[in-house]
Amino acid sequence: MKTLTLKLKPLDMETGRSIVVLHEDDAALLGHVAGDRLKLVTPEVTLVAVGNTTRRLVQQGELGAFVEANKSLGLRAGSNVTVSLAVRPKSVEAIKKKMAGQELTADDIGSIIQDIVADNLTSTETTAFVVSQYIRGMTLDEVKFLTERMVDTGETLTLDVKPVLDVHSIGGVPGNKYALIAVPIVAAAGLTIPKTSSRAITSAAGTADVMEVLANVTLSLEEIRKIALKVGGVLAWGGAVKLAPADDIIIQIERLLRIDPKSQLLASVMAKKVAVGTDHVLIDIPTGLGAKVEKMEDAHSLAHDFIELGHKLNVQVEAAVTYGGQPVGYAIGPALEAKEAMETLLGNGPNSLIEKSTSLAGIMLELGGATSPGLGKQMATEILRSGKAYQKMKEIIAAQGGNPDVKVSDIPIGSKKEVVPAPISGYMTRIYNERINEIARAAGAPHDKGAGIKLIVKNGRKVEKDEPLLEIYAEHENRLEEALSVLKEKPPMKIEGMLLEKITHRPLELA
Amino acid sequence: MKTLTLKLKPLDMETGRSIVVLHEDDAALLGHVAGDRLKLVTPEVTLVAVGNTTRRLVQQGELGAFVEANKSLGLRAGSNVTVSLAVRPKSVEAIKKKMAGQELTADDIGSIIQDIVADNLTSTETTAFVVSQYIRGMTLDEVKFLTERMVDTGETLTLDVKPVLDVHSIGGVPGNKYALIAVPIVAAAGLTIPKTSSRAITSAAGTADVMEVLANVTLSLEEIRKIALKVGGVLAWGGAVKLAPADDIIIQIERLLRIDPKSQLLASVMAKKVAVGTDHVLIDIPTGLGAKVEKMEDAHSLAHDFIELGHKLNVQVEAAVTYGGQPVGYAIGPALEAKEAMETLLGNGPNSLIEKSTSLAGIMLELGGATSPGLGKQMATEILRSGKAYQKMKEIIAAQGGNPDVKVSDIPIGSKKEVVPAPISGYMTRIYNERINEIARAAGAPHDKGAGIKLIVKNGRKVEKDEPLLEIYAEHENRLEEALSVLKEKPPMKIEGMLLEKITHRPLELA
Repeated sequence: MKTLTLKLKPLDMETGRSIVVLHEDDAALLGHVAGDRLKLVTPEVTLVAVGNTTRRLVQQGELGAFVEANKSLGLRAGSNVTVSLAVRPKSVEAIKKKMAGQELTADDIGSIIQDIVADNLTSTETTAFVVSQYIRGMTLDEVKFLTERMVDTGETLTLDVKPVLDVHSIGGVPGNKYALIAVPIVAAAGLTIPKTSSRAITSAAGTADVMEVLANVTLSLEEIRKIALKVGGVLAWGGAVKLAPADDIIIQIERLLRIDPKSQLLASVMAKKVAVGTDHVLIDIPTGLGAKVEKMEDAHSLAHDFIELGHKLNVQVEAAVTYGGQPVGYAIGPALEAKEAMETLLGNGPNSLIEKSTSLAGIMLELGGATSPGLGKQMATEILRSGKAYQKMKEIIAAQGGNPDVKVSDIPIGSKKEVVPAPISGYMTRIYNERINEIARAAGAPHDKGAGIKLIVKNGRKVEKDEPLLEIYAEHENRLEEALSVLKEKPPMKIEGMLLEKITHRPLELA
Repeated sequence: MKTLTLKLKPLDMETGRSIVVLHEDDAALLGHVAGDRLKLVTPEVTLVAVGNTTRRLVQQGELGAFVEANKSLGLRAGSNVTVSLAVRPKSVEAIKKKMAGQELTADDIGSIIQDIVADNLTSTETTAFVVSQYIRGMTLDEVKFLTERMVDTGETLTLDVKPVLDVHSIGGVPGNKYALIAVPIVAAAGLTIPKTSSRAITSAAGTADVMEVLANVTLSLEEIRKIALKVGGVLAWGGAVKLAPADDIIIQIERLLRIDPKSQLLASVMAKKVAVGTDHVLIDIPTGLGAKVEKMEDAHSLAHDFIELGHKLNVQVEAAVTYGGQPVGYAIGPALEAKEAMETLLGNGPNSLIEKSTSLAGIMLELGGATSPGLGKQMATEILRSGKAYQKMKEIIAAQGGNPDVKVSDIPIGSKKEVVPAPISGYMTRIYNERINEIARAAGAPHDKGAGIKLIVKNGRKVEKDEPLLEIYAEHENRLEEALSVLKEKPPMKIEGMLLEKITHRPLELA
């Protein structure tokens, strides 16, 4: 193996991982390709770093080391560092196996996940893994290994109680704040449900964003453990704890490519449940036009995969296909959704939200053995009606450092408001989920907690011209204007003429 | 579309393309994923740059801009820049089509290649294209579009003569200096052959490295044109001219992943020939154990694809399958190979090299119409024997700024030398191409021109214990030692017992 001795030149910038820079001519001498690994040897340490090349930043004979690499080398400027090509980690062969369409073993997947977490792979190699996984797919056994290895390489929670329940929605439908009602219902029945959830990525509010309006969601695993054991229910932000960190790195690449391999979706959801010790999980699959899953057959196939995977992981999984063709309830955006959830707990919520929350909570009550099969929904409804769910939610809010006595009317929402009227009379035949999200985001959600949309009319309703259809809330005037300009460009609702049987004009879209 | 106004903070480092850095919280506000594109708007310019994220390098409200981005923005520190998510280039959809296994149109491929050359794609996206191309493959029509678009987006040469010949070896066999003999033979017959070739990547010497011992190979397209028209033959380094620059970017990723998709190999070779106006090409496919192509059926399939692709591109292609199971000739390394090539032109070369060079030159003489089908090899041999090829090589060397009267004995080779003897008596049954390359590279080749290996014994020969097998040359003592330590670890030759029919001991390897 060829080696070069180069003089260390510290470079004053953080790069997030060990990165060095060498002159193109030195790289050519070594046979090094920019972006590949280099082995750096000093009298004290041996370090593997990613090596980029330059013609200007360092001279021939110099080794530029960014902050992280420089710190690991622990030498002063001008010291000698012996540089050679690093051996590629074993996991690269496993990635090439997947590229070639072969099934990976537990060891293969273990080495890939370990190297992703340890930052041993270049971004080119990690991308190759994600793209191969997307194109080649994975068997459920591979997904099982992937899930287990992602759990092994992250933090985990041990509660020493059974059962531990959880519910997860695969998302894609706006206003989906059901967990703020379902979790207290389940906990009120004496069951343990330490729910971790995510913040919004492309939507207007994730469960964590909504809960954050009422309490602190950035909890440590120890805090989650304590609250789960004391109160039963937790509504925490999963991103605050390092559950399955490999998943976060893989998802970053999926987001850059806008792909969502089914195998990774399955492993991602299940890993985060297994990591908190869940043994009974309910998967909510919102299905309908404009949802993540549009066809019933795809929903069934996904449900089947989750149940089978759960079986392999010793987790009992049930799946519920819910209607995802329009927003759940009427509120979209963190504060608006928190208000609607609290109103629902107080007995004054919209039907679609009550229905969804009690249905899902009912399945969990049965899963957790709190009631007999077939009686869960009724029990959930009673817990909600009786006010016990509201009491439990107050306990959860208090345990998470919020104000349990907050009045719904005291939850602040954006002071800038615009009411959008119907441009024509007709029937509301479609609400576009994606556009609703986009408008709410333009208004400032999820960052501006008070920003979002309040729907006034939903699908199927007859509307008169100039009747209010929705309200947009924002914290800043310019955000409100941006939201209105998105709304103008991409009307979120479709109103069709009265004579549905004999349409003689092009359907009008709200503008 | 959400926007933020950030204060410009110039960062004093070159990054090779427009890159900016923003604080993680600002990225979250925008919904920006680290590594994706951002649109930057100033009163003067609109720029699309790759946006990385940080928690430390810049504060919230600041936009860090590296040298290239900062230059394009043309503002002073602290100026306002309006930042939003950039629209993804159309080519990303084409890449996703290939991921999904669909055939790409000429427009799809055109948009991908254009965006690769214009640096509009993130490295994640370009990697996704390369991996998808590798897994999904391409039809010959797609390869044709790929070739044409790679030519369109690079520099081209127009000679206004016909025919224009070329020869290309797909490589993988050490000591493959045939072009230094075949090109002068073809040019001596009055034909035009402006050969561009590459430097070594993983081997000990590329044709350009060998020719550089004798003359300048870093020629401009205008110099290549002039020499081709005046002398007929050119032996230039292709990397000095921007022929098919998209190919160089794609190959970089292939090298990082150690993959070599057939579709890209075909397009890469043909693009560089079409770009210099070649209308008749001979493809050399070295085949044998330890070569790039090991099986005859694979060689035939590759030959067929090259011929078909040539047909689609209006280039007449012939393919020759040559023996690649051991080095060509005896010399490996730039100066050693240049010496052997000159000796061969002077009538004193090894048989394998004379055979290969005259066979390939013969096919080109027939392709170019200098002689009738079936008579090429004979004509090539006569041109070589007569000294006309040597005279033509002197003209080429002179035209490329070298010394045409250089004596073979004056070509300097490494002064550090070690003779490696046979450890046992027996038959030499195998020379490992890859190990020969590795030892020669450890000795300093191709950077140290005088470094390399001189074989004394080749396959099939009977050797006595302690008889010299090969010599290693180096310019520096420590390189010689490194080469010997690689040789010890990875014996480059296998010597087997005399009784081949009745082997009673494990074959011994040279150490």
